[in-house]
Amino acid sequence: MNTPLVGLDWGSTRLRAYRFDEAGAVAETRALPWGSRQLPEGGFEEAFARAVEGWPRAPVLACGMVGSRGGWREAPYLDTPCRLAALAGALTAVDAPDGRTLLIVPGLRDPTGPDVMRGEETQVAGVLAQSPAPADDVQLLMPGTHSKWVRVHRGAVTGFTTLMTGELFALLRGHSVLGAGLPADGTDDEAFALGVAAARTSGAAGGLSRLFSARALMLEGALAPASVADFLSGLLIGDELRMALAGGWAAPGAPVQVVGEDALCARYLLAAPAFGLALQRTSGAAAAAGLWQVAATAGLLHGHPHA
Amino acid sequence: MNTPLVGLDWGSTRLRAYRFDEAGAVAETRALPWGSRQLPEGGFEEAFARAVEGWPRAPVLACGMVGSRGGWREAPYLDTPCRLAALAGALTAVDAPDGRTLLIVPGLRDPTGPDVMRGEETQVAGVLAQSPAPADDVQLLMPGTHSKWVRVHRGAVTGFTTLMTGELFALLRGHSVLGAGLPADGTDDEAFALGVAAARTSGAAGGLSRLFSARALMLEGALAPASVADFLSGLLIGDELRMALAGGWAAPGAPVQVVGEDALCARYLLAAPAFGLALQRTSGAAAAAGLWQVAATAGLLHGHPHA
Repeated sequence: MNTPLVGLDWGSTRLRAYRFDEAGAVAETRALPWGSRQLPEGGFEEAFARAVEGWPRAPVLACGMVGSRGGWREAPYLDTPCRLAALAGALTAVDAPDGRTLLIVPGLRDPTGPDVMRGEETQVAGVLAQSPAPADDVQLLMPGTHSKWVRVHRGAVTGFTTLMTGELFALLRGHSVLGAGLPADGTDDEAFALGVAAARTSGAAGGLSRLFSARALMLEGALAPASVADFLSGLLIGDELRMALAGGWAAPGAPVQVVGEDALCARYLLAAPAFGLALQRTSGAAAAAGLWQVAATAGLLHGHPHA
Repeated sequence: MNTPLVGLDWGSTRLRAYRFDEAGAVAETRALPWGSRQLPEGGFEEAFARAVEGWPRAPVLACGMVGSRGGWREAPYLDTPCRLAALAGALTAVDAPDGRTLLIVPGLRDPTGPDVMRGEETQVAGVLAQSPAPADDVQLLMPGTHSKWVRVHRGAVTGFTTLMTGELFALLRGHSVLGAGLPADGTDDEAFALGVAAARTSGAAGGLSRLFSARALMLEGALAPASVADFLSGLLIGDELRMALAGGWAAPGAPVQVVGEDALCARYLLAAPAFGLALQRTSGAAAAAGLWQVAATAGLLHGHPHA
């Protein structure tokens, strides 16, 4: 079992550990519930020990919120524009209790927002590495709690923005007068499309100006209580696409690569045509590919060929 | 003690009871914590009995969420355009346990949103009644959990929209990654102004596209943790003003009458100049004046002159 690298995709709510084989493929994956905000007793050290338990003593490279101020060790941000190759030159080292060294990939900061990301920069590196001949200009979308729209020019991240669609949805669905106490989410594609259309026709005021229509539509029977969540999902995802267009993060017809969970990406692909957007699903484990790529650039793989 | 009318401003979180004198002035006010969602044991009947306890048996007129589907009795909406004088002709009667009759003012529905209001229509009637010579066109703003922007033409509500600023602020302040766990709100006018400026310069994407900058600014030390709430308040109020302008609910320089709580109205007045908006504070108890006005139009005051 040759293991040149162990990778950790360590976010705020979960931890994924990857054991790589010599070809850079993921030989084994562990999904653990220990995000940087939900650690086991013993904290980061204990979570780390359990994540790599029984695996060979290869170099360990991590990305994500583990490197945030509230994480294990703060890994300073690199400012955009930033070449993806520069990530490998700015790793932050942490001594793990078993004598191993954990290396953490830096996050990125866009000073014009300002805006920050941690973990997505590694996914971007992974997507580019998996692309046989990337175009000079690549536009990516990583939907989620905090959706990221990222612009890459010849291997450098030139800028990005965060749109809080997923978190706003969770807040409105769980805690607002619009969504709290309603029946569990269904999958009402018609209600989703109605929400997308509301965002598309919201004009310069924007989709958030139409939020309360969810309540009015429900009161007058045009929207079933069980379909309100789908309407809100369509409205918020549609408004994210509207904002991305208005902010210059996407252009009609120009391809945008979408990286993320299947079900969520499918919703964005469903909403895109109403805005003339050409979203393209990118398959593959972007974070794992990115960790391998950063490790290769950093020269970590040659130091322990048979670790 | 002549009491020609008792008025109830009965919302979702609180109940205000007014005993009027013969001149239409409020002789006595009771503020009770029993909104339609927080009722005492015994429900609406008990809350009603306690609200009017010991007061003369005058007609009782109520407005607000007491007339919603989840209220005491649903009072059907009137559609806009709707003359304010028509409210008095569409009261819904409820028999109270002590033999009194409670009359509920209808809410309004704008079919173009669609959008709905309950209680604010009575405040609009009150503001107009208190104005010696209202202009042909009056534009009102009632800021709050669900801010209402209302257009009145010659005594008729011609349209309105709801912007959920107050509820979004509470959700982001209390439950989001941006605000949860931060120190209690201060009053950092500079952070508020920074938020307003972020909304004003957000361009077509809109202020919600700048939400995450609150986190980035805090991480880089440009915003103290205790000032994040003020920044968010400025961003959301600023974005409400931007949306109102974009949606045609306000125009630069054209007066907008602002009705509501002093501290909240003051924040809107503070943000308005950045958007060229001429907000004007309307003083006086709009709901009480509106209840009196609707009762007068309905002929309720003459039936019980010495009740």
